Amino acid sequence: MDLSLYTVNNLWILVATCLVFIMHLGFACLEAGLVRRKNTVNILFKNSMIISIGLLLYYAIGFNLMYPGGDFAGGFFGSISFGLNVPEGDAAGINYADGNYSFYSDFIFQAMFAATCATIVSGAVAERIKLEAFLIFSILFVGLAYPITGMWKWGGGWLDALGFYDFAGSTLVHAVGGWAALAGVILLGSRKGKYRKDGSIKPIPGHNMPLAAIGVFLLWFGWFGFNGGSVLSADAGGVSKVFVTTSLAAAAGAVVAFFVSFLKFKTHDLSMVLNGILGGLVAITAGADLMSAGEAIIVGGIGGLIIPFSIVFFDKIRIDDPVGATSVHLACGVWGTLAVGLFGDMAGGAQLVSQLIGTAACGAFAFGVSFIIFFALKKTIGIRVSEEEEKRGLDIAEHEMNAYHQLEKAPYNLDIK
Amino acid sequence: MDLSLYTVNNLWILVATCLVFIMHLGFACLEAGLVRRKNTVNILFKNSMIISIGLLLYYAIGFNLMYPGGDFAGGFFGSISFGLNVPEGDAAGINYADGNYSFYSDFIFQAMFAATCATIVSGAVAERIKLEAFLIFSILFVGLAYPITGMWKWGGGWLDALGFYDFAGSTLVHAVGGWAALAGVILLGSRKGKYRKDGSIKPIPGHNMPLAAIGVFLLWFGWFGFNGGSVLSADAGGVSKVFVTTSLAAAAGAVVAFFVSFLKFKTHDLSMVLNGILGGLVAITAGADLMSAGEAIIVGGIGGLIIPFSIVFFDKIRIDDPVGATSVHLACGVWGTLAVGLFGDMAGGAQLVSQLIGTAACGAFAFGVSFIIFFALKKTIGIRVSEEEEKRGLDIAEHEMNAYHQLEKAPYNLDIK
Amino acid sequence: MDLSLYTVNNLWILVATCLVFIMHLGFACLEAGLVRRKNTVNILFKNSMIISIGLLLYYAIGFNLMYPGGDFAGGFFGSISFGLNVPEGDAAGINYADGNYSFYSDFIFQAMFAATCATIVSGAVAERIKLEAFLIFSILFVGLAYPITGMWKWGGGWLDALGFYDFAGSTLVHAVGGWAALAGVILLGSRKGKYRKDGSIKPIPGHNMPLAAIGVFLLWFGWFGFNGGSVLSADAGGVSKVFVTTSLAAAAGAVVAFFVSFLKFKTHDLSMVLNGILGGLVAITAGADLMSAGEAIIVGGIGGLIIPFSIVFFDKIRIDDPVGATSVHLACGVWGTLAVGLFGDMAGGAQLVSQLIGTAACGAFAFGVSFIIFFALKKTIGIRVSEEEEKRGLDIAEHEMNAYHQLEKAPYNLDIK
Repeated sequence: MDLSLYTVNNLWILVATCLVFIMHLGFACLEAGLVRRKNTVNILFKNSMIISIGLLLYYAIGFNLMYPGGDFAGGFFGSISFGLNVPEGDAAGINYADGNYSFYSDFIFQAMFAATCATIVSGAVAERIKLEAFLIFSILFVGLAYPITGMWKWGGGWLDALGFYDFAGSTLVHAVGGWAALAGVILLGSRKGKYRKDGSIKPIPGHNMPLAAIGVFLLWFGWFGFNGGSVLSADAGGVSKVFVTTSLAAAAGAVVAFFVSFLKFKTHDLSMVLNGILGGLVAITAGADLMSAGEAIIVGGIGGLIIPFSIVFFDKIRIDDPVGATSVHLACGVWGTLAVGLFGDMAGGAQLVSQLIGTAACGAFAFGVSFIIFFALKKTIGIRVSEEEEKRGLDIAEHEMNAYHQLEKAPYNLDIK
Repeated sequence: MDLSLYTVNNLWILVATCLVFIMHLGFACLEAGLVRRKNTVNILFKNSMIISIGLLLYYAIGFNLMYPGGDFAGGFFGSISFGLNVPEGDAAGINYADGNYSFYSDFIFQAMFAATCATIVSGAVAERIKLEAFLIFSILFVGLAYPITGMWKWGGGWLDALGFYDFAGSTLVHAVGGWAALAGVILLGSRKGKYRKDGSIKPIPGHNMPLAAIGVFLLWFGWFGFNGGSVLSADAGGVSKVFVTTSLAAAAGAVVAFFVSFLKFKTHDLSMVLNGILGGLVAITAGADLMSAGEAIIVGGIGGLIIPFSIVFFDKIRIDDPVGATSVHLACGVWGTLAVGLFGDMAGGAQLVSQLIGTAACGAFAFGVSFIIFFALKKTIGIRVSEEEEKRGLDIAEHEMNAYHQLEKAPYNLDIK
Repeated sequence: MDLSLYTVNNLWILVATCLVFIMHLGFACLEAGLVRRKNTVNILFKNSMIISIGLLLYYAIGFNLMYPGGDFAGGFFGSISFGLNVPEGDAAGINYADGNYSFYSDFIFQAMFAATCATIVSGAVAERIKLEAFLIFSILFVGLAYPITGMWKWGGGWLDALGFYDFAGSTLVHAVGGWAALAGVILLGSRKGKYRKDGSIKPIPGHNMPLAAIGVFLLWFGWFGFNGGSVLSADAGGVSKVFVTTSLAAAAGAVVAFFVSFLKFKTHDLSMVLNGILGGLVAITAGADLMSAGEAIIVGGIGGLIIPFSIVFFDKIRIDDPVGATSVHLACGVWGTLAVGLFGDMAGGAQLVSQLIGTAACGAFAFGVSFIIFFALKKTIGIRVSEEEEKRGLDIAEHEMNAYHQLEKAPYNLDIK
């Protein structure tokens, strides 16, 4: 491999790392914007801690667990070893991954991915989870659960051998995060007052829509690195195609969510359009390299179609998810994974079966493990704040802090009406 | 062309694509920050839809219309054909554009540009335009109008043959968007109460200045891709020079706008400085590759000088533009285009004439077409919301949603005075 | 040097330039979020002006002063000459810096660095400094003071000859900015009412925590360019290692600040975690290329440990720094510089002595010059606003503007409780 080509390949992985990093700010803004003011600091705190804990844990054990570099326990589990096993000799050099990136690039790109998975859970359990319980869950989830399903496919495990395909993680990141979120929400229960005794549902609007919109745009921005970086080289044809499919799927998700929610709710619902963008992005992620531009529009558009129905459905079965994470990441993640069997270069019956198996296996594992962790936490330290704390808001209860101060108290206002 | 060089050239176009994408968030934040609270969701909604509609339409017809790859209708119109005509053989390969970028990179970079043009209009017509009317206008504008003037120069049409120069779009993107904005504002009329019967002007301050500042910084950030990517390769000398001229022009715009607005208004006006930055950026865009560092400071500084005078002028003739888009994009876009005839490598009388012709032709077309579209919409579905809806704000009228909730209603406040 | 390698090396410097640029938005958001509402516009104004003034001054004199390209005045001062001395012949070509970047890339990357230094001061002196005094200080500081200490090491001056090491500027950018901030705060005095006569300290919480969190995430994002770009080429092994050390140090800073502040204050303090991230980043900056992943965690973790103690310490000695800039940039900058003598590839007694000398020399110069400038300003135009203006807030006093309008005044609210 040529040194120049190695350098540019590696550079793209690093730039993609920056882009995936900024998705954490995207999640923080989106989730903070969609919860009530009184739980804003809590969201920001959780998201600041998740990325930090996530990076350290992935350094400590996750990376080795996920990429054991060989068969281990029949392709079901990776190796347990501490820290980075920097290759000997030409450390981090051109021969590490066929000249596509260095060892350190491999680690840091994968580490940014790992932390996103726990962030998905954060939004769904917002406004009533205990901070310590959530942090302990995140440690176990990013350090152990995520790397295991990740290893099944990306680490060369049994799902990879089976032919399961998941380009950048519709299942391995998004649905896995979504299943964990679902487990959390089931054990936590809904926010106080959300579902009334008469069967009606109280709308609890987000407190800051500009913040939510900033979040979604930053997520889209970061997705260029999430999907584009998953080409694992700067290959011009490959990365540029992924940029096209990713963008068009997001756009189609927005437009379809716009029309469907307009027909369904007779209004122009900003949060549906924003979630439509995310739904399109999650849906294209499994096959962003396989789809033509037209197929990307279909796959992303169906993602956007799923959003309003899924959000209504989860509300109907009283799964209270303040930010719609289960709809975006779980429902559209499953759809995107199955879409690989229906559209694009690998479409076909055998592939669809593989996709179904991968979806079911990762889902069962992620849901099961998360349920067990949350259940154990519930029976020990507890996972839900007290009713009084929920009413006051977690910002005061957990952080003794308000998110905003004196926004309107201008002692000497200008004469503006 | 060497594969490594092709890969790095292409990578820069893709990174620039990300940067131009984030300009859409920049516009959304800037416009949302500068309007009243009651129209915030509406701005965010429009900007989320514009980028989505823009990408899909540019995919469907815009790209073919703008880059017909040969003469068509005498260089005045491109070809009408649906979808992407991916080159046969080495699809999206090294031979597509002399090894500078792949077919898919070409499309997605140009698609991001196209959508910015409609976003410029969004701010100027804010706070009183009907959502559906704006969306229909955007469809026609991004799908048909923008690609036609774009084709005249960048697609190899008659203005290109004439010697007109517009590096990254002071005219083709900014002035074209600005002319469309002007047409819209003329037909819409001013916001209720803005111009009083006694001739005085009611100041309507933006509701969230941090949001506006975030918008401007993100636009500057994105402009590195907008101008830098327009080198259409990663050529080290070329791109780095464009970074220098772009940065210094923005800085000069800010500093001149600071001094002029201080002398004119006797205060330190943040919105003037922010618009001065944008004025400098728009002004340098036509000749960012042609100017020396010193010339860039002059061209950008004059952009910053134009801003306060232009804003006062438009207010005097009762063109009510809540965000100053006509001053930033139209006035400075025209200035930047003409500056190519006055400063830099191509300066000269003949060039100035070409620049004047290009400015006039694109202006006449963009204004004319936009006027016709808005006029037709006005006579059919209407373009302006009712007085009652304007008073309530578009967030409630069009979206049944507030941008913010309970920002100050902390039920259990800390004891802080 | 191969043209492809030159192009990718240069491209990384330019992408890093974009990332360092966005740190200015990071600082603006962080500082705006941590001050009171009534001083928000002022912060945004200062930060918009600093980057603009900084770029122009670094163009005019700073770059030549800092990189004289040879000994001058015994390695203590660079050359005074105006504007950019673009190399003759292959202007901005492959031979400028051994094929690592072009002349223009060199200038613009360094120019972005220079402006960050003044931004550090901005936060510490917030809420009571006169705008004109601050702008004049910034001009002298970015134009003269920063390039002189910068030259001592990076320009090949006497500290470089001595063996002092500062990879990306724990001292040359952060501690230098921090010392200047300290000088400013000492001469300015504390905000009215901060330190009460009875010895108690009034907490003055920031007005917008989402804004502060956005700022910190953007700073982390930008730090990939700040540290990664300081490799001064796209060398795969080098840049990727810096990404790992930078990320892990930030993460460790957050986690340690979390635990320490929890033990110390018995609450989950978001601002401590945010400043812990920044403390970790500042600390790793001097030796980001020298540390192993494990050492980076230690160095960053100690940065996070310093934060809560330093913030309490500065408050105890009545140094009123609204955003904690002295703790983050000065205390952690000194720590990070000394850490190069204790950890990593260069650790050793002799190195530690060099680090101490560099720390002391740059500190004495930066503090001394800043003290003189602020003192001269205090005795002439004054540096502090009147008590009345401080009470009203600088937004009205200096800008006749409010940061927010009518955030809660929804004339027709939805029926949401």
